[in-house]
Amino acid sequence: MFKKILMPHDGSKGADAALEKAIELSKLTGAELIVLTVYRHHSILEASLSMVRGKGEEPGNLDDAMKAAAREVGEYAKHRARDLGLEKVQAFIKGGPSARTIIAFSKEKDCDLIVIGSRGLGASEGYMLGSVSHKVTSTASMPVMVV
Amino acid sequence: MFKKILMPHDGSKGADAALEKAIELSKLTGAELIVLTVYRHHSILEASLSMVRGKGEEPGNLDDAMKAAAREVGEYAKHRARDLGLEKVQAFIKGGPSARTIIAFSKEKDCDLIVIGSRGLGASEGYMLGSVSHKVTSTASMPVMVV
Repeated sequence: MFKKILMPHDGSKGADAALEKAIELSKLTGAELIVLTVYRHHSILEASLSMVRGKGEEPGNLDDAMKAAAREVGEYAKHRARDLGLEKVQAFIKGGPSARTIIAFSKEKDCDLIVIGSRGLGASEGYMLGSVSHKVTSTASMPVMVV
Repeated sequence: MFKKILMPHDGSKGADAALEKAIELSKLTGAELIVLTVYRHHSILEASLSMVRGKGEEPGNLDDAMKAAAREVGEYAKHRARDLGLEKVQAFIKGGPSARTIIAFSKEKDCDLIVIGSRGLGASEGYMLGSVSHKVTSTASMPVMVV
């Protein structure tokens, strides 16, 4: 019933729980699992902080560090999926605002389900549903499972 | 991976789309499908309108009409499920506020997934995600699939 499942993973525990469900569903339906980790571009923000920036802390370096961290999350998710017997899994990283980047990527990859954690790293404690999960659920054109 | 799937159906087209997914998922996982239709009690509201009430429009009668309509939705959902080859399906009706009644019932029945339409009858056109779907997604203690 699903062919391509998108699982946005931000490295949070909530995302880990969603990853487990996404792996199970992928195995059950024979779907391909696509893990996406979105990172924020820090170049522009950092450019305005040039006065306080030390040696080796160039904007480009910070972006590289964000990308490397995002890649690590994706690698972890791929290993977890393969450990659980799922072969058809790919991981991607993308820079940009979380919800919009997830939605755009889900369309680009023609996914038919998004499995997302109810609260991620960006969620404040006061809210039961994280703002990214809420935005994705509100604007996705395909079913969204909130775990 | 799921044992009991709750599908709140309010008779809307959005709920119909969610019902199809819930049936597919129940078949795939061997889960029991539980369809719930929530109706609003109108007795109290109607008591204050006694001046304009005509013959035969007693509050009790209006509640009966709401219940009968809710039961029809449940019967339709059961038939649809059985037409698609799902035997393990039950339908219930409950009176009360939609989201809270759905959440309470999901716990009472020990469901491990809720499949709900993104917008139901109560949703205004301006919102991408219906308020009931949003409340259920925000407060459920189990995964929620918004279709």
